Amino acid sequence: MTLSSARIVATYHVRCDARAIAVRAEALAIEQSIELPRGAVREGLIVAEIAGRVEEITQTSPEMFMVQVSLAASTMPPEAGQLMNILFGNTSLHDDVALVDVAFPEGYARAFGGPRRGLAGLRTAVGAGDRPLTASALKPQGLGTADLAQLAGAMARGGLDIVKDDHGLADQAYSPFAARVPACAAAVRQANRDTGRHTLYAPSLSGDLDRLRAQMKLVRAEGLGAVLVAPMVIGLPAFTALVAETPDVVFLAHPSMAGAARIAPELLLGRLFRLLGADAAIFPNYGGRFTYSIETCRRIAGAALATWTDGSTDIRPAAPAPAGGMTLDRVPELLDFYGRDAILLIGGSLLAAGDGLTAAAADFQRRVERHGQA
Amino acid sequence: MTLSSARIVATYHVRCDARAIAVRAEALAIEQSIELPRGAVREGLIVAEIAGRVEEITQTSPEMFMVQVSLAASTMPPEAGQLMNILFGNTSLHDDVALVDVAFPEGYARAFGGPRRGLAGLRTAVGAGDRPLTASALKPQGLGTADLAQLAGAMARGGLDIVKDDHGLADQAYSPFAARVPACAAAVRQANRDTGRHTLYAPSLSGDLDRLRAQMKLVRAEGLGAVLVAPMVIGLPAFTALVAETPDVVFLAHPSMAGAARIAPELLLGRLFRLLGADAAIFPNYGGRFTYSIETCRRIAGAALATWTDGSTDIRPAAPAPAGGMTLDRVPELLDFYGRDAILLIGGSLLAAGDGLTAAAADFQRRVERHGQA
Repeated sequence: MTLSSARIVATYHVRCDARAIAVRAEALAIEQSIELPRGAVREGLIVAEIAGRVEEITQTSPEMFMVQVSLAASTMPPEAGQLMNILFGNTSLHDDVALVDVAFPEGYARAFGGPRRGLAGLRTAVGAGDRPLTASALKPQGLGTADLAQLAGAMARGGLDIVKDDHGLADQAYSPFAARVPACAAAVRQANRDTGRHTLYAPSLSGDLDRLRAQMKLVRAEGLGAVLVAPMVIGLPAFTALVAETPDVVFLAHPSMAGAARIAPELLLGRLFRLLGADAAIFPNYGGRFTYSIETCRRIAGAALATWTDGSTDIRPAAPAPAGGMTLDRVPELLDFYGRDAILLIGGSLLAAGDGLTAAAADFQRRVERHGQA
Repeated sequence: MTLSSARIVATYHVRCDARAIAVRAEALAIEQSIELPRGAVREGLIVAEIAGRVEEITQTSPEMFMVQVSLAASTMPPEAGQLMNILFGNTSLHDDVALVDVAFPEGYARAFGGPRRGLAGLRTAVGAGDRPLTASALKPQGLGTADLAQLAGAMARGGLDIVKDDHGLADQAYSPFAARVPACAAAVRQANRDTGRHTLYAPSLSGDLDRLRAQMKLVRAEGLGAVLVAPMVIGLPAFTALVAETPDVVFLAHPSMAGAARIAPELLLGRLFRLLGADAAIFPNYGGRFTYSIETCRRIAGAALATWTDGSTDIRPAAPAPAGGMTLDRVPELLDFYGRDAILLIGGSLLAAGDGLTAAAADFQRRVERHGQA
């Protein structure tokens, strides 16, 4: 990888008066690079190569502009923290700017690696051919280990593809990780033996890298092939470290703490999490508990799936996983919208079935498997 | 520590129509706790204890409300990632809500520990009595190791208290960490021998926990007593791990990636970073390159310094470090505003002095030391 003269092109939306945009764009380019006025830098090469360059300014509405800034790749060795630091670090402190897109030169795709399993690996793991996938979540917070395991077993007996811990399940006294994971794993294993299916149980990992590794060790000891992590909660550097050292495990990326941070959701959830190794990107679907628009959801799914190659390296597609207050009656609509390359994640509305959970899960699974086959 | 029935009280600003605020507040309380409608949870104890409770709703302007929600401490074992997950995880995805304050029950202060050195430890390290401190930054990005070391030496000879790496300096080919840190450390050591002062050099650490630890090892091998980290870039769990294992090192917390995330700056930079172990909190000062208001800056400084005890544990004050486009002529104004309990961080305007850097640094130091002694 030669990054020496290569440039990363970052695109920002900037809210600004038209008379001030040129100066504002230049300030942005400086802030994300040399942090000194060009005049205060004596080294010509630094001004010419290291300083950010405003490549294009396009007005998109009376007070909104799209600003493209190229940044020297040499300032950003491929490390996840430095990636965010250079793309948006100090600029995140300005509330007139959002980061909306990034184009990487050759080298970053290979260095970060993208999903190690991706949508295709997920389908293989659950034996799903090319159909859409189903998922649900173990909750509420506060349930003990036995109750969670009972829910996991019931969902798996309904035939769901993925049963994941709620992202709020960490290592609480009422269901410690070390007890919860073996119990839920055993319940899903037993259900899989009974049904002949391959439901994946994905425990939620949390803590620092030491703790994440200890938890991953238990996950593997239980023979589990998937985990849930919230990259913005555990930190992007820890996320990439974990992905790199367990390439056979499917990583479901949860959007907790990823919101309203003035980074476009399709970029952060769809592209950056994917580049860093997310096999599936969970995001709030339109018309549920969250307010993402249909267009935002379409863009997130598109970004997770789009062909991504830099010539020498292909990044595998990640599975879009719309979630957040979905209901069974919306399955046809969601599948029409997302197509077959998606995981439908329905939690609360399945759990509301109470004793009928397995039947509700089976109903969910059936609706998804049969969609489009009529 | 008994957290079983204790509750954390989080305060949010919510933009909402007055007729809808009760429902919106309840949805927020559920989102940050059980994530299921109360009616869908059969276990009475979970509904009574684990579900978030709306404690108070106060209208602050026609469409703005202050909402206090209490969350069960048992859902949040004291781990930095889970802290953010429970306080703001999914709610970060809603753009009508900002997290503005948190009150912790007993136990968290001791568990997280706060600054291990704090403002007092910083003053002791540089021999500053009770006066305000000075700091500057090594930049621009792109300079080689020898040039950075030369700048560090020049600043230290001017007598500054702290010379830190720019937060953009990571492990770039043009100044690799393993070369830069010993070179800058040597330059500052030599200057300290010449001046008889105790300038601290604080290298910028980056990467995952393995890499952070390797870098910290080098920092200690060089006998350095301070580092710069951006907690939101390295990840809060990695930050707390590092603080816990090197309690003798001063941690300067940089705000990169901490902005515009709908968490009040005084809470995130002033209180949470402090709780997690920041000895100094760097933040964008009013009237510089950033747009934080005077009031926001006053609140950040206040939060970093305020007495903080939960009865059994005191959290040390952290040093407020206003920065971001400050100039020498503003020193009197800044000291009048912040008082003696502050670090003034001036980078670019010192570096603009070029060959006169040492003289400019000495001028800066003199202005700070003499302020209020006339």
